[in-house]
Amino acid sequence: MPYNAPLTEYRFLLDHIVGFDQVAATQTYADASPDTVEAILSEAAKLAQTVLAPLQRAGDLHPAKLESGVVRTSPGFAEGYRAIVDGGWVSIAANPEFGGMGLPMTLTTAVNEMMGSACLSLQLNPLMTQGQIEALEHHASDEIKALYIPKLISGEWCGTMNLTEAQAGSDVGALRSKAEPNGDGTYAVTGQKIYISWGDNDFAENICHLVLARLPGGAEGTKGISLFLVPKFIPDAQGNAGATNSLSVVSLEHKMGLHGSPTAIMQYDGATGWLIGEPHKGMAAMFTMMNNARLGVGVQGISVAEGAYQHALAYAMERKQGKTPTAGNDAISGHADVRRMLTTMKAEVFSARAIALACAVAIDMAKATGSPEWKARAALLTPITKAFGTDTGIAVADMGIQVHGGMGFIEETGAAQYLRDVRVTAIYEGTNGIQAMDLVGRKMMDKGEAAFRLIEEIETNAHGVRAQYPNMATAVWDAAESLREATEGLISQEMNDRFAGAVAYQQAFARVLGSHYHLCAAMAEGKDGPRTALARVAIKRLLPQHKALLAQVSLGAEELYALSDADLLA
Amino acid sequence: MPYNAPLTEYRFLLDHIVGFDQVAATQTYADASPDTVEAILSEAAKLAQTVLAPLQRAGDLHPAKLESGVVRTSPGFAEGYRAIVDGGWVSIAANPEFGGMGLPMTLTTAVNEMMGSACLSLQLNPLMTQGQIEALEHHASDEIKALYIPKLISGEWCGTMNLTEAQAGSDVGALRSKAEPNGDGTYAVTGQKIYISWGDNDFAENICHLVLARLPGGAEGTKGISLFLVPKFIPDAQGNAGATNSLSVVSLEHKMGLHGSPTAIMQYDGATGWLIGEPHKGMAAMFTMMNNARLGVGVQGISVAEGAYQHALAYAMERKQGKTPTAGNDAISGHADVRRMLTTMKAEVFSARAIALACAVAIDMAKATGSPEWKARAALLTPITKAFGTDTGIAVADMGIQVHGGMGFIEETGAAQYLRDVRVTAIYEGTNGIQAMDLVGRKMMDKGEAAFRLIEEIETNAHGVRAQYPNMATAVWDAAESLREATEGLISQEMNDRFAGAVAYQQAFARVLGSHYHLCAAMAEGKDGPRTALARVAIKRLLPQHKALLAQVSLGAEELYALSDADLLA
Repeated sequence: MPYNAPLTEYRFLLDHIVGFDQVAATQTYADASPDTVEAILSEAAKLAQTVLAPLQRAGDLHPAKLESGVVRTSPGFAEGYRAIVDGGWVSIAANPEFGGMGLPMTLTTAVNEMMGSACLSLQLNPLMTQGQIEALEHHASDEIKALYIPKLISGEWCGTMNLTEAQAGSDVGALRSKAEPNGDGTYAVTGQKIYISWGDNDFAENICHLVLARLPGGAEGTKGISLFLVPKFIPDAQGNAGATNSLSVVSLEHKMGLHGSPTAIMQYDGATGWLIGEPHKGMAAMFTMMNNARLGVGVQGISVAEGAYQHALAYAMERKQGKTPTAGNDAISGHADVRRMLTTMKAEVFSARAIALACAVAIDMAKATGSPEWKARAALLTPITKAFGTDTGIAVADMGIQVHGGMGFIEETGAAQYLRDVRVTAIYEGTNGIQAMDLVGRKMMDKGEAAFRLIEEIETNAHGVRAQYPNMATAVWDAAESLREATEGLISQEMNDRFAGAVAYQQAFARVLGSHYHLCAAMAEGKDGPRTALARVAIKRLLPQHKALLAQVSLGAEELYALSDADLLA
Repeated sequence: MPYNAPLTEYRFLLDHIVGFDQVAATQTYADASPDTVEAILSEAAKLAQTVLAPLQRAGDLHPAKLESGVVRTSPGFAEGYRAIVDGGWVSIAANPEFGGMGLPMTLTTAVNEMMGSACLSLQLNPLMTQGQIEALEHHASDEIKALYIPKLISGEWCGTMNLTEAQAGSDVGALRSKAEPNGDGTYAVTGQKIYISWGDNDFAENICHLVLARLPGGAEGTKGISLFLVPKFIPDAQGNAGATNSLSVVSLEHKMGLHGSPTAIMQYDGATGWLIGEPHKGMAAMFTMMNNARLGVGVQGISVAEGAYQHALAYAMERKQGKTPTAGNDAISGHADVRRMLTTMKAEVFSARAIALACAVAIDMAKATGSPEWKARAALLTPITKAFGTDTGIAVADMGIQVHGGMGFIEETGAAQYLRDVRVTAIYEGTNGIQAMDLVGRKMMDKGEAAFRLIEEIETNAHGVRAQYPNMATAVWDAAESLREATEGLISQEMNDRFAGAVAYQQAFARVLGSHYHLCAAMAEGKDGPRTALARVAIKRLLPQHKALLAQVSLGAEELYALSDADLLA
């Protein structure tokens, strides 16, 4: 499955759509000059295209295996990981103080997308480490930072997140893992964690687990949870991986996809751990990592959408069936319904990518300026990016199968793998339902202020181009106005009524926002530009969906409960 | 994966929604008394629940294999097939003249659905045979009928369909297989066919292949194609499977799902075949089989939707996470967003099943009365049933995964298998794009007469209940009116403009029609009935989608081609 990194598209989005110039103009990111950006993106593209893309099928066909307690990774993955490490790609955003490049999250986002398009299951490994670095930078002691972060940045060591337990999934507060003080400043961590992505591997010197557990006296629920760093090998005074810790991989899951990524059940039996952050404040520390990871997972959806689009397009331009209206070319890409699918796929990738990069810009600006407005923008866009990015990954991969016809169902083609791999992204790091509830709950605790500010921008922009693009501008303005009204209705609702319309609201928000960026692209390119043609597809064919979605928002929960459990079973 | 056949639901649909009483009142189906219907459905339910359901996972875990040219089926499948055969379930619709029961297609539809919910990959086997019986009944000579049909009905022999070749998929007319007269009334058939479902097995005495090939002098394209019956073993004068024919299974495909069903590449090397129907009229004969099969495949989608719904519901009622608004019960089925998914799944299954049964009733009425109106109704509903049934299967299976959260991605749970299995149903027997083109093309050659007649019925019905259910009746009436307007616009469009909106039109039609049946259910049950509550979910939350879909119908194809191939690649 050859892959071509969309470098021109990143350049266009950074320059014309998401306002990356603001990021580059800050003191914090002064290093992100156009030349640096160019160099970073083109080098990452080379890695993705030449080294990682060939691993995609290998990971699927030869899943990671647990042999005598040791995880054996898929063929080529160790070499692929080495190339990621050697290029310095584990984290380009990490703090220079510990050996990082201190580059913006916006660039990390593009780099992660490329690595994920090429080989999603391997890309998940550094994504986990990136989150851990971020959490340690914010919450760890200076000693821990100095010991661990350089090893994580260099890729010698890998990081994982351990939240879930069998009885504690979306309800993290139900966890039972415990940590007892050892009296020497360390803790003995005991419990079983499930769904641990890259819980172990055979190519890193050490695996550092961030584990949520409860200290003695910790309250029930999320308020009594603390965060611990529990390494597979306990580092000695020189920072070398030393004694084996009391933890093990119990088993690896047999999954629908993402076979190259070992998903472990981890057992901790009084394993030595170090407290990260304050006692009982583990959730806050974990959220640092989780928000980062949520953007990262949204981007995984975009990775797969881009890969599946390229893959389906190549097939559609090669495969001939029947007569098309396209003179002299009977490739199926010329059939109206296939073209509908291809243009929809491309339009959706554009929307999802623009939203993700806008989210990353907001994160960078919040960090660089400390502005509460940027912080609120980043917080608002994170669940939208995660849910819409992954929904788009699934929808585009599904259309990719359909474009292939019968070949789409045959595994050798590779189209099915995209769908099987990406399906989990709508589930992990908080299901898309949880994202939507975060959006209508926590992210509306400002009475919708951040949402209204963004809607205002969309409307102002649309208003400004109504002369140039009367139809598109009106459609976007009207949709934004409907979104404003729905938001006003939403914040006056009881929480469970909000939850009943949460997914629909989140999808409508993404639809309006994506259309806004399409309109911006049309403004930048002018009437005859190809992105303007794509904007017409997005705004005329897809944007109208927002109305049916917003209709659900106003309904509340009552009707959903009118059917009893017995009625559902009947 | 336990399965409970929805017998009460069939009874309700037959009695109150799809007008099965008309079928039972005909001379042709006089045997379909309430007692017979009851007996048939409950016996089929028993088979599905006890014998077939345990095979679902076995087929997935142990795919059919090709060993030294012989297909070895999944563990238990031979016994499962034997139970189907012994119960007389291969075909309950076949002509009594040849040993069939001559029962309505409406009952076949319910029986097929139950068998498919229990084990889709095994159910596909008799579904293929049913289609072959139908084709032979209509087009074969008396001799062929007498020799083959009783064996097919009894299940001693199985039937397959051989249309596709590597270069001839949706474009069947591009096929290259040839048939040469042997001089003794038989033909030598040569060529390679792909995607042959159940191309071979190890539990039937003989496999009878219906093969499309071109006779000498046959014109290019679909007009020069003839249909041949090519048995694996050539029957002797007594009708016993005799000499081995010159055909073989080249290989089996490695598929995304439906692993229990062997999908073969078949090679014919001058294999002895018998012409079915007239020379060069093979497509017409094949369409008899294909229309039957299209309804059957639509029902496969419903099978999986029902199975996935039951499976997800059981999980959601068991799994506890967090606090729900449902007093004393913190099963996740009480969370608003999970309940949204569950009620949506149930509402969609109802819509798809009602449409499929209405299609089957139309087929039965057309056969029993010869009425052109019923024929046109059946022709109109077939592509809608196929596409909406399979789209529903995919959407509901996907929601089933989401309801399971992390467990949905773990294969042992079984949720993923539903999606992997059902995905092909939107592709085979004509992709859903092809179905939509059939709907807006061939099925509108009557200038929309059949469509308008159905829309009229929907409006009349909605008008009649506006006092009882003002909101729901108005919503359905308005939607039907929008569908009428869109249909008027559609039939005035050039064909390629129709094709650009074909899928959207088909989806909107299904949405309106499904809502109509929900409204009928509310009428039958009264204000406090559970199906009335479900109708509110369908009509208030889902029906509004029709507007965005119909908006696409009016756009035509132009914008899809505004992006050049180079633009798509950029």
